[in-house]
Amino acid sequence: MAKTPVRTHPSSERKPAPKLVYDFEEGSASMRDRLGGKGAGVAEMTRAGLPVPPGFTITTDACLAYLGAKGRFPDGLLDEVREHLAGLERRSGKRLGDQENPLLVSVRSGAAFSMPGMMDTVLNLGLNQQSLEGLARRTGDRRFALDAYRRFIQMYGRIVLGVEAELFDVELERAKKSAHAGSDAELKPAALEKLAAKFRQIVETHTREAFPEDPWDQLTGAVAAVFDSWNGRRAIAYREFNHIPHTLGTAVNVQAMVFGNMGEDSGTGVAFTRDPATGERRIFGEYLLNAQGEDVVAGIRTPQPIDTLERALPAVYAEFAKIAERLEHHYRDVQDMEFTIEKGQLYMLQTRTAKRTAAAAVKIAVDMVAEKLITRDEALRRVDSEQVDHLLHRAIDPKAKIKVIATGLAASPGAATGAAVFDADRAEQIAKQGRQVILVRIETNPDDVHGMIAAEGVLTSRGGRTSHAAVVARGMGKPCVAGTEDLKVDLVKRRFEAGGVVVREGDIFTIDGTTGRVIEGAVPTVEAGVSGDLEQLLQMADKVRRLKIYANADTPEDARRAREFGAQGIGLCRTEHMFMQQDRLPHVQRMILAQETKDREAALAELLPFQRDDFVGILEAMQGLPVIIRLIDPPLHEFLPSHDELLVEVTHLRDAKKAGRKLERAEHMLRAVEELREQNPMLGLRGCRLGLLFPEIIEMQVRAIAEAASELRRRRVKPVPEIMVPLVGHAEELRRSRQTIEATLKQVAKEQGVRFDIKVGTMIEVPRAALTAGQIAEHAQFFSFGTNDMTQMTYGVSRDDAEGKFLGRYVTDGILPANPFEHLDPDGVGRLMGYAVTEGRATRPALEVGICGEHGGDAQSIAICERLGLDYVSCSPFRVPGARLAAAQARLAQTQNQDV
Amino acid sequence: MAKTPVRTHPSSERKPAPKLVYDFEEGSASMRDRLGGKGAGVAEMTRAGLPVPPGFTITTDACLAYLGAKGRFPDGLLDEVREHLAGLERRSGKRLGDQENPLLVSVRSGAAFSMPGMMDTVLNLGLNQQSLEGLARRTGDRRFALDAYRRFIQMYGRIVLGVEAELFDVELERAKKSAHAGSDAELKPAALEKLAAKFRQIVETHTREAFPEDPWDQLTGAVAAVFDSWNGRRAIAYREFNHIPHTLGTAVNVQAMVFGNMGEDSGTGVAFTRDPATGERRIFGEYLLNAQGEDVVAGIRTPQPIDTLERALPAVYAEFAKIAERLEHHYRDVQDMEFTIEKGQLYMLQTRTAKRTAAAAVKIAVDMVAEKLITRDEALRRVDSEQVDHLLHRAIDPKAKIKVIATGLAASPGAATGAAVFDADRAEQIAKQGRQVILVRIETNPDDVHGMIAAEGVLTSRGGRTSHAAVVARGMGKPCVAGTEDLKVDLVKRRFEAGGVVVREGDIFTIDGTTGRVIEGAVPTVEAGVSGDLEQLLQMADKVRRLKIYANADTPEDARRAREFGAQGIGLCRTEHMFMQQDRLPHVQRMILAQETKDREAALAELLPFQRDDFVGILEAMQGLPVIIRLIDPPLHEFLPSHDELLVEVTHLRDAKKAGRKLERAEHMLRAVEELREQNPMLGLRGCRLGLLFPEIIEMQVRAIAEAASELRRRRVKPVPEIMVPLVGHAEELRRSRQTIEATLKQVAKEQGVRFDIKVGTMIEVPRAALTAGQIAEHAQFFSFGTNDMTQMTYGVSRDDAEGKFLGRYVTDGILPANPFEHLDPDGVGRLMGYAVTEGRATRPALEVGICGEHGGDAQSIAICERLGLDYVSCSPFRVPGARLAAAQARLAQTQNQDV
Repeated sequence: MAKTPVRTHPSSERKPAPKLVYDFEEGSASMRDRLGGKGAGVAEMTRAGLPVPPGFTITTDACLAYLGAKGRFPDGLLDEVREHLAGLERRSGKRLGDQENPLLVSVRSGAAFSMPGMMDTVLNLGLNQQSLEGLARRTGDRRFALDAYRRFIQMYGRIVLGVEAELFDVELERAKKSAHAGSDAELKPAALEKLAAKFRQIVETHTREAFPEDPWDQLTGAVAAVFDSWNGRRAIAYREFNHIPHTLGTAVNVQAMVFGNMGEDSGTGVAFTRDPATGERRIFGEYLLNAQGEDVVAGIRTPQPIDTLERALPAVYAEFAKIAERLEHHYRDVQDMEFTIEKGQLYMLQTRTAKRTAAAAVKIAVDMVAEKLITRDEALRRVDSEQVDHLLHRAIDPKAKIKVIATGLAASPGAATGAAVFDADRAEQIAKQGRQVILVRIETNPDDVHGMIAAEGVLTSRGGRTSHAAVVARGMGKPCVAGTEDLKVDLVKRRFEAGGVVVREGDIFTIDGTTGRVIEGAVPTVEAGVSGDLEQLLQMADKVRRLKIYANADTPEDARRAREFGAQGIGLCRTEHMFMQQDRLPHVQRMILAQETKDREAALAELLPFQRDDFVGILEAMQGLPVIIRLIDPPLHEFLPSHDELLVEVTHLRDAKKAGRKLERAEHMLRAVEELREQNPMLGLRGCRLGLLFPEIIEMQVRAIAEAASELRRRRVKPVPEIMVPLVGHAEELRRSRQTIEATLKQVAKEQGVRFDIKVGTMIEVPRAALTAGQIAEHAQFFSFGTNDMTQMTYGVSRDDAEGKFLGRYVTDGILPANPFEHLDPDGVGRLMGYAVTEGRATRPALEVGICGEHGGDAQSIAICERLGLDYVSCSPFRVPGARLAAAQARLAQTQNQDV
Repeated sequence: MAKTPVRTHPSSERKPAPKLVYDFEEGSASMRDRLGGKGAGVAEMTRAGLPVPPGFTITTDACLAYLGAKGRFPDGLLDEVREHLAGLERRSGKRLGDQENPLLVSVRSGAAFSMPGMMDTVLNLGLNQQSLEGLARRTGDRRFALDAYRRFIQMYGRIVLGVEAELFDVELERAKKSAHAGSDAELKPAALEKLAAKFRQIVETHTREAFPEDPWDQLTGAVAAVFDSWNGRRAIAYREFNHIPHTLGTAVNVQAMVFGNMGEDSGTGVAFTRDPATGERRIFGEYLLNAQGEDVVAGIRTPQPIDTLERALPAVYAEFAKIAERLEHHYRDVQDMEFTIEKGQLYMLQTRTAKRTAAAAVKIAVDMVAEKLITRDEALRRVDSEQVDHLLHRAIDPKAKIKVIATGLAASPGAATGAAVFDADRAEQIAKQGRQVILVRIETNPDDVHGMIAAEGVLTSRGGRTSHAAVVARGMGKPCVAGTEDLKVDLVKRRFEAGGVVVREGDIFTIDGTTGRVIEGAVPTVEAGVSGDLEQLLQMADKVRRLKIYANADTPEDARRAREFGAQGIGLCRTEHMFMQQDRLPHVQRMILAQETKDREAALAELLPFQRDDFVGILEAMQGLPVIIRLIDPPLHEFLPSHDELLVEVTHLRDAKKAGRKLERAEHMLRAVEELREQNPMLGLRGCRLGLLFPEIIEMQVRAIAEAASELRRRRVKPVPEIMVPLVGHAEELRRSRQTIEATLKQVAKEQGVRFDIKVGTMIEVPRAALTAGQIAEHAQFFSFGTNDMTQMTYGVSRDDAEGKFLGRYVTDGILPANPFEHLDPDGVGRLMGYAVTEGRATRPALEVGICGEHGGDAQSIAICERLGLDYVSCSPFRVPGARLAAAQARLAQTQNQDV
């Protein structure tokens, strides 16, 4: 045998046993995965020399080993804990369970992600009947010691031993009552001593074991309880919902107790380095003197605002303020801190990045750039682009007391209060009298649009976030709560019922489209808008982003609003909503019911001036910027009366044996509707198919566009219309549609003596269009992804049918990672989009490609669009600011990836 | 300068002027593109030394040059024609227009593809008032010459000069009447002379020019007319419909006339080398003595069967028989020949590959292999696999006299005669009385299935070749004519009207699903089946093909039939048709309407024995072969009563102010139906979505399968069930469905003390499934392409809505090259299938992949499946034989391609 062993394989080396416990001094912020968020935070503060009570952290590895071994502590763990505990005792000069100078510790869980549902905190661990006496002697405050003791039994009993909290609460109340004490602070030592005994007895009765007296047993019991809580039902559910892996595990923090309840020079509190509601740069928080942490939370005494601490304990406040500033600089973000003051000595117990409101997030990001604390790119990454939407709408005053009677889907953000109205005509009528109304429907359809225009907001009991109500309301920037399944709407009796409350026509109520809440009565709201800070942030975003942001808008008002919000064009101007207006619908119906081309042309001639005026308005509002006008898209029966209503009417009239003009007319209309009725209208006679069968319809629309452009040019306004053909699935459809379009443009150009240079392109929404994009691009100057329909067809899911039914279950049950109508599906729809971009541009390198589906306003989807190299995203006007930010974030992520 | 010029570029060489005219001696069969089919045929015969009247062909290049120059003959063309004409005159010893010995020629068009709508033939060209005399003198038959002359003016006037045929016909009738002549053969010379003068006058009146006397003008006029006819309206329409390029052009054949009308030793006829109706090996055809070609076609005299020629002119017949055999050997296929006998001398005018019936095609192919005339592979290529379908169904006796009253889509082949019945229940009732019925509906739905089972055939006025009626009828092997738009069906009055005929309930009529004809009254039909020849051919196909052929079958009878036709398994056994049967529907409805899982389970328990028996029957019929059973697929409301009927019923009852149990029940059912009603049921709650929401449904189905398998094993029958999950769009859907399936299988295995090895796989029909096939294959043991739904979703086209409406227009207008529901779309659906095959097999190399959509029986689609490397195609039982052949043809094409 050789004397010098030759190392052959790394695996042949003996691995050192992994370290499972770290003193706070040994850890750092970068060890978050192993020490958890809390452990990493206290370690980092300890390293920075801040006053942190000493302690140690048991790693997530230890937790995983414990759980893997079905509840056995891994080899060596307890030895390591003993070792670190001995160190802690050495440094503090106290001993766990000592009857002279006992060490008390807190035990807290701390995973890498903040996670409700796990065991939180056990304070005062180490107390038993002997150390209780030691604590009383050492502090000279027997009442304090007894109070700490009964609190410990209560907490440990509830959290570690699983005894119901109510059993302790009942005893506490009984003790207070018999002592005529208003609060527990008024309980005398004798009463507390009796209470502690009672508590011990409760534990014994319910666990059939004595309350653990040995502090080591207390500690290992608490550690095991923390570990076990990782697999608690609520914790698992939370992780599933938030897509946090189950394989992370939690750490355990064991820390020497400090006491805020040792008199008026002691206290405890929580504070932020800036105001988390407004973003204002000032220390913001609350504290209580002579109290322990749980008292602040429990709300038994009202905490004081932190600035009053400056008067109460000026030196402590000054130190705290300095520490807060250091921490914010250190972490380069707003901190949410916990602290305790023990007899004038400040201790920091925790620090973490602070949650904040949308408004605060924006202000903080902008301010920190000005303060040179963070870079522009960091500032852009710091703000959640979805939150930006919320800044643009009225919101329920967060201070208001409200009664929520139902909760539906947050379909279009903002709050609205008004009288309940149950049909569109009444809504219009009552709104004309100057009253604010909310339109309540089971679901809406294009017939309801005039009522939606008149209303402050819309409430429906059916349909998802992309139902007609939701899409139209978002487009209008009106609040909408959709798919409120708890709502029982009775359209005949004109009332709805929810949460035991009946709301009749005219009754005032409130909806909050930001959260989906339906609220009884009127509620105070707060105004919002694009603040100066937001504008600054968005301008930073504009410098970074590559994607252009367009808006979907069908009216001059929407177009103007979109432009104010920073839209660089209209990516989707639908022409069918215009058809729905009351003064046009009769002509539209006449057009549809025409048997001969001649009659159809006559009806279309009536519509032409309306359409032209629509386009004049929008093109003028967007002057100099492109307006992509989509030719008629929906199936024609959407413009006709409801089939079911007609069927009932005809049956009635027949039953009444009233032959006559009325029956004849109704029968005629019913036949026409039946003729056009389709089993799956989504996949029926619509889009470019209409124009190929009835070219005169798109001839009228193109003529209206061309004449509008010509009129504006005469007025020296620069119109930039583009014409988009919907629902193309085969290149030949587009080639022929374009022939008709170009012929009409040529005709109008000749009549008007002008030249047009109007781009013609197509929606890419049918999967086959994406798969044959190389062929289609031969006839298209631009592509616009209609990802709503594309998602429906690629997934085989009808959005209208699915969102209220199985799709919700699919998402909550985790069958789908997300609702594909909210966030673009990268593997299916995204893959098709990729083909279309690549192959479309291979045919026509200058091809402009954008997206105009609902996804255009969604941050995750925008990131996909950035990766695919789209030219623009188009979304509803109110989502434009958020999209500007999201596009910048997507760009940052993309360029970062490219660097790697 | 160098003495020897160095050739640098081919382009620097001077190209010889292209040759535009070819003597028959110069051409050959391989020059079809330039000489057309007819020109190549006569050239080939001339080269073979057969007696062909001399002549020359003007090439398609000349035609294209002429058309490109907007009607100017290309440079040099007329010189070449003159030259070849001079040669023709030399060889024949006659001269065009000569008053002594005039040459007469025929001028015929001849494109590469036989093409109606183009100018056909001008005979006797070269006659004028002088050559007429020459011809009369030379033949010694003035009557003959005058008759030829008036025929020439008539033909030339009509075909070349565009004079209406009727004008000549009227004059001819008048002449016959005033001469008291029964036929034109009885007209005397004087009458013919007057008639010719009259004809010339008609031409002059209608063209405002004299009839051309100069034979050269006649010839160039005829050539130009042939060229022009290439761009005639009907010719263009024909090419568009048949996808023949417009850029081919037509050739022109100029040939010395021979005369069949020179007495009883002259004649003309057409004949085939074998019987084109039966394939029998004997010369088959017709002829007329003393007649010109047009007389045979015109039907004025009844032609004689060709075998009588053996007695009439034995030498001529013997020569003809020899030539026929030579031609068949030369072309190695049955020939369709035209010939003329001039004074005992036989001339061959044309030969081409003969069209033939399906039965003949099969017999000829098989016989020719036996005769060693062609190889097995050639035989397989010779038979149109689509035609094989026709051999398996009763057909209208081709000799029967019939009155067609309407024509619809040939939706399911075969002929059926029976009494008209207008609803399914009556159909069942009347059929039970032993009467044959045909079910007539506007369109059918699953409620009608029992009526379809009872009926001999189905006739609908709406819906396409893949409508419910068509698909179900094909599945049952029953004749169906669908989408008969001319049919006015009145369900209330129980009658339909078509072509002026009213058919009432009970009236006998006939449908021919092979051609789409609706026929008045009863019509004699002829039996068919897999003949010995067909069986031989299919056995050859089985040796060649790689693809397995499965069948779609839902009943033991269908399964047995499929097996008889050669199916190697069941690729799709639908389970929902079973639910539709009258004894089960109440349980199914109870299951659907159940509010609680418990009630649903109780209803399912009632269904279990039915399902088990169904599976026992099918698995037994297919013993030893795989049966792929698809779990429930359609939306549940398909099993409930019609919404519209319920709505009318409820309205009636309310109008009658009859509150009570009946109204209550109707209202309850209406509410339930409304609850389940969907805007786009195709994309709604169906397929695996049902099983994920209501696992107890698929638990019942899987249990039925497992228990059936177990029962058969006890009876020593080998069942091979496989379980297929429909409508998967995301891997997680399949993973969870499979969990439920496996758990149930395990449960039943435990109960029965057996082990199951049942494969679980999925339909690939949702586009996203194809795009994520790599993920889905992790959970699937097989894939089966559901290309019906996949085409719907990939194209965004609802088949039910589109086929009666825009899809038909799309195909006839040429927007789509074909109906994608008949022939797989290679660029869209085919591309998705390619991804699924490649990526699915990358995950799971042993993955079995097949197709079970309607396309599985279509030859073009089978070719795509072969290219994509599928393992099998599955089609309706009656299409199995055709598919066996198509798969062999696809294999031959594929291996050929691979060789290249």
